[in-house]
Amino acid sequence: VSEAPTYDDVVAASLVLAGRAVETPLLESPLLNDRLGGRLLIKAEMLQRTGSFKYRGAFNRLAAIFDASKGAGVVAYSSGNHAQGVAAAARDLGLAATVVMPADAPAMKIERTRAWGAEVVLYDRRSESREEIGERLAAESGATLIRPYDDPYVIAGQGTVGLELSAQVRAMGADLDAVLIPCGGGGLTAGCALAVAEAYPRAVIYTVEPAGFDDTARSLAAGERQSIDPTATTLCDALMVSKPGAMTFEINRRLLSGGLVVDDGMVTQAMAVAFAELKLIAEPGGAAALAAAVSGAYDVRGKTVAVVCSGGNVAPETFKAALDGAA
Amino acid sequence: VSEAPTYDDVVAASLVLAGRAVETPLLESPLLNDRLGGRLLIKAEMLQRTGSFKYRGAFNRLAAIFDASKGAGVVAYSSGNHAQGVAAAARDLGLAATVVMPADAPAMKIERTRAWGAEVVLYDRRSESREEIGERLAAESGATLIRPYDDPYVIAGQGTVGLELSAQVRAMGADLDAVLIPCGGGGLTAGCALAVAEAYPRAVIYTVEPAGFDDTARSLAAGERQSIDPTATTLCDALMVSKPGAMTFEINRRLLSGGLVVDDGMVTQAMAVAFAELKLIAEPGGAAALAAAVSGAYDVRGKTVAVVCSGGNVAPETFKAALDGAA
Repeated sequence: VSEAPTYDDVVAASLVLAGRAVETPLLESPLLNDRLGGRLLIKAEMLQRTGSFKYRGAFNRLAAIFDASKGAGVVAYSSGNHAQGVAAAARDLGLAATVVMPADAPAMKIERTRAWGAEVVLYDRRSESREEIGERLAAESGATLIRPYDDPYVIAGQGTVGLELSAQVRAMGADLDAVLIPCGGGGLTAGCALAVAEAYPRAVIYTVEPAGFDDTARSLAAGERQSIDPTATTLCDALMVSKPGAMTFEINRRLLSGGLVVDDGMVTQAMAVAFAELKLIAEPGGAAALAAAVSGAYDVRGKTVAVVCSGGNVAPETFKAALDGAA
Repeated sequence: VSEAPTYDDVVAASLVLAGRAVETPLLESPLLNDRLGGRLLIKAEMLQRTGSFKYRGAFNRLAAIFDASKGAGVVAYSSGNHAQGVAAAARDLGLAATVVMPADAPAMKIERTRAWGAEVVLYDRRSESREEIGERLAAESGATLIRPYDDPYVIAGQGTVGLELSAQVRAMGADLDAVLIPCGGGGLTAGCALAVAEAYPRAVIYTVEPAGFDDTARSLAAGERQSIDPTATTLCDALMVSKPGAMTFEINRRLLSGGLVVDDGMVTQAMAVAFAELKLIAEPGGAAALAAAVSGAYDVRGKTVAVVCSGGNVAPETFKAALDGAA
């Protein structure tokens, strides 16, 4: 598949991932529902292998590598979660992995990528291009480059989050009014949108981005891809992308209702809610969609709304500060 | 049922709880497995409704109340998790609930019991007997007293944790060498033992208690119920019981291999491991069995071992201190 994936590709990915990826639970807190005046369903992807949804797309992509190319291994670039997903999928499939990571990525994400067995190459986020380094490494070694989002197998793999979520909503006997999804390059959103649009065609789907990195929200509003100036800072290290993917945006433009934006205060509040009400660790970027619902940036009243909590790879210091900030 | 429950009662409870209780996931961390040299499976009961397994037994018990007695409501005594379980089950079944709690129980457990709609009556743990207060309130009002563990419906309800766990191990294609279960009065252990002994008769089953509250370990060693002097302190507020239940001990004596003991340092270490490797919030008592496996108090090497993480109701300050203590 070199073209954009379809719903059928998401279903195919779910078969590839069966018994490999965790079928993460769809949880809710009746006390939180009381407070919000609606029904909020939380897809707990921090419980996924490697602590984020990224394992799904990575495994689906790596499983599709031809035998003749397996020996040269894989190369990826990532600020942390895709890195771990690729490293773990490579380990599970017996492939060598090299991952290009920014030197200022959270130390625990770098450590854990190494723990999964990958070789980590650090670069300077301000002066170097991770895409160029990744492509050069791949060209030199013959390794397969595993793009973080603009890849049909990756998008289809991430889409299994939406496929599971839809089946879980149905098993609850519930309907679904809206789905909110944290958005960096847009792969998780695009994959989930393919699945949800099929299962719940009347549900609206929104991306949620951190303030300063709202390239997808702007692009959806403009109808074409827009870049932002990536000088802003955000707690959401996993969502620091300055321009939507080409393939992901084609899907998202067609299936989404728009893009929401949350600030760091809303995100830490949501991390504290996940702690108190759900007993889950959400990393800042992983809590973005929950933040939109909890803060009221998206009004849940009278609706059934699913939010994807996309990851939980957060350092203890950052997590403790979030609990303090929200106190 | 006024006699001790059997495996069939656990199966019956699973039907009562279907669609009510969360089927909590059985998780593992490959990196943690590497470190321990075995396979550790974590039953994540902090994701249960009310943040602990107690909802299961409470709902199963309340659902068995005759219609003629429903109007008078229910009374329970509890340091916190049974309180929330009873309060939530009462809310779900439309019954009034009064809960007797020690004044020094964690404030968040008292608050949340109230949030679920129960009336909370506080007592002094040192000078008053919660059993007497509970029995008096029940006698005065005609309310049904919901005992925290020495009740066949409660034990059978908690046993659904073991029933699910066994089915999940089987679905993984794994075998099971041992199960470790946090133990207060012994209801969770007894119920799980009924289920696991049926599904995996060769698996060994151990309770895990905090140092100073090892009444079940001592009782199992002695072959009869022993009391401890409850003056010790422990982080594990949920496990501060000074004597095993009569009904629970009859089951546990028959089906268990023994009792393990962990100290506060092992418990905080386990809470930090649950944070880093599993992205789960474990309260101190909820982390006791995980602590036995992670600390080496139970040797996991070369085995497949399931631990029940029984709850996640912990105040932010306690949780932050645990992350610091383990750093």
